[in-house]
Amino acid sequence: MQALAAQYVGNRSFEILEGRVDAPSAGEVRLRVGYVGICGTDMHIYHGLMDHRVQPPQVVGHEMSGVVDAVGADVTGFSVGDRVVVRPLDYCGDCPACREGYSHICHNLKFMGVDSEGAFQSYWNVKARTLHKLPEHVSLKQGALIEPLAVACHDVSRARLKAGEKAVILGGGPIGQLIAQVAIGIGAEVMISEPSPERRSFATSNGVLAVNPVEQDLKSAVDEWTGGKGADVVFEVSGVQPAVDVMTEIAAVRGRICMVAIHSSKPQVDVFKFFWRELELVGARVYEAEDFERAIDMVADGKIDLEPFISKVAQLDQIDSAFSSMDGNPSGMKALVSCGADG
Amino acid sequence: MQALAAQYVGNRSFEILEGRVDAPSAGEVRLRVGYVGICGTDMHIYHGLMDHRVQPPQVVGHEMSGVVDAVGADVTGFSVGDRVVVRPLDYCGDCPACREGYSHICHNLKFMGVDSEGAFQSYWNVKARTLHKLPEHVSLKQGALIEPLAVACHDVSRARLKAGEKAVILGGGPIGQLIAQVAIGIGAEVMISEPSPERRSFATSNGVLAVNPVEQDLKSAVDEWTGGKGADVVFEVSGVQPAVDVMTEIAAVRGRICMVAIHSSKPQVDVFKFFWRELELVGARVYEAEDFERAIDMVADGKIDLEPFISKVAQLDQIDSAFSSMDGNPSGMKALVSCGADG
Repeated sequence: MQALAAQYVGNRSFEILEGRVDAPSAGEVRLRVGYVGICGTDMHIYHGLMDHRVQPPQVVGHEMSGVVDAVGADVTGFSVGDRVVVRPLDYCGDCPACREGYSHICHNLKFMGVDSEGAFQSYWNVKARTLHKLPEHVSLKQGALIEPLAVACHDVSRARLKAGEKAVILGGGPIGQLIAQVAIGIGAEVMISEPSPERRSFATSNGVLAVNPVEQDLKSAVDEWTGGKGADVVFEVSGVQPAVDVMTEIAAVRGRICMVAIHSSKPQVDVFKFFWRELELVGARVYEAEDFERAIDMVADGKIDLEPFISKVAQLDQIDSAFSSMDGNPSGMKALVSCGADG
Repeated sequence: MQALAAQYVGNRSFEILEGRVDAPSAGEVRLRVGYVGICGTDMHIYHGLMDHRVQPPQVVGHEMSGVVDAVGADVTGFSVGDRVVVRPLDYCGDCPACREGYSHICHNLKFMGVDSEGAFQSYWNVKARTLHKLPEHVSLKQGALIEPLAVACHDVSRARLKAGEKAVILGGGPIGQLIAQVAIGIGAEVMISEPSPERRSFATSNGVLAVNPVEQDLKSAVDEWTGGKGADVVFEVSGVQPAVDVMTEIAAVRGRICMVAIHSSKPQVDVFKFFWRELELVGARVYEAEDFERAIDMVADGKIDLEPFISKVAQLDQIDSAFSSMDGNPSGMKALVSCGADG
């Protein structure tokens, strides 16, 4: 098989080149890449909004699965043929955050596939410390969604959501819907607030209550749903001011609001409500190793079905079509790029 | 002794009337009032900003100490002569917050001395469930400061501040300075950011680092103090936009920001930083019973000296002078009104 690489060259375009097949350095493995998902960050890159970090031409992509193809010196615990996913965080190990055990928020964090070379290619060399093994009955296609599912696991964990609690998710894109599935998987009840009818329909067909906040008063809906108590947890996954306005309205006394969205400007926040109802705002960024393990376990145990999330699969040399299918306000959840390895 | 009562009649004025001496109802005690402190809320009342809640003419005041003077039916655990302080929260016991154990954030909370009659009088009848006993060697003058000290204990507890951690307090008024003393009392290190030279001088003379955020770059000062890590905890006690701007700048990765101040408008908040550094914003309102117990213990154990906080003591019939001394931007911390009982 010919090794290929899709290089992002700026301005919504990729070039398909011959890919590298390098021997792995000490501590690294070479992966034969299986599937790579396209996430919101990849779409931002595609739109040229992250060229300062990506510095095109560069191979990007970080939601991936693959098979160990070669093992470098000093690597233990992994062998050729292992089916794996990559936790794409390259941390320094030496800053105050790393020293406190928060390497996922390393002061010098390099996000692989953004700040360094990514997975849209046939082979990818990565540090062995980034790997998590896939059990036999989790497919490589499902594996490509472990990374966003780990995000959702991290969000649910940061919000300290428990079985029996009620959570409202503001925004029904892929991460919002995955949070809903994780929340249901641990025994919580979930309502998604989402204007798009396609996304509300995706939610309801996967067992989630869905409300259109443009047509319905979300606070009234939550009050009715919770008997006037308010939501135990609110996930802000939309990044817009109206969601920030409503998040403090619908949270219960001592409710936790988990900030998942990336807000590019500083919204106005009703901090008085934080005082008055002793609310908490908890930021959640990427994931820790245990979130990947939990995500893999939930799929392996059948608690989460990732198949409905896969809207499209394109071959690596058709990567343009995969990206354009996710552009605008797509009805589909997740497009995957098939890079060679399968199973 | 003649029973007196100081009635707030609106527009920065009080009328001194003959006070009531009523027999306590079942579950209540009659207190002979010792000392009553003037807090920020009382100043808001004085300025006419809370007439919708206070509905003058009304006796206000809630930071108090006193002596049990008569005991109603069904009261156990309290006897005539007990020296006590009042936790001035009248909760319903039946709303979702009360049922979850958060009666201090009761959906129908009446704050005594604001939403109902207060302590600026010779005798005050209150529910026995609001009482905490003072040990023999805590004076009634000190007792009048237990309520604001309990606020500070609650704030420190909500922020989960631990020994060895570093906290920055934005605002050096009475609550900010009491938070500093509680923080030091549990073994944390503290820096206060405060523009007023008198308040900075109060801080330093009580063992607290103080920075003028107008003349010095607070972020640089915190970076230097913490070796680039940032503050483990930030207390926002100022209620102004510049403090909200800086609170997210100076917090460490996973830092906790405790919202103590009452913000009357919705400030812009850098919620991206909450995501990026996994910060937490934790609201803290009034106190719980254990905060009163902790506050009393800290004074009884000599961990906190309240004497420097008492700037002035006025007799009940001179209550106007006590309020006017706290108006504007006072250099003193706390004025007390002496209502009769002493010891």
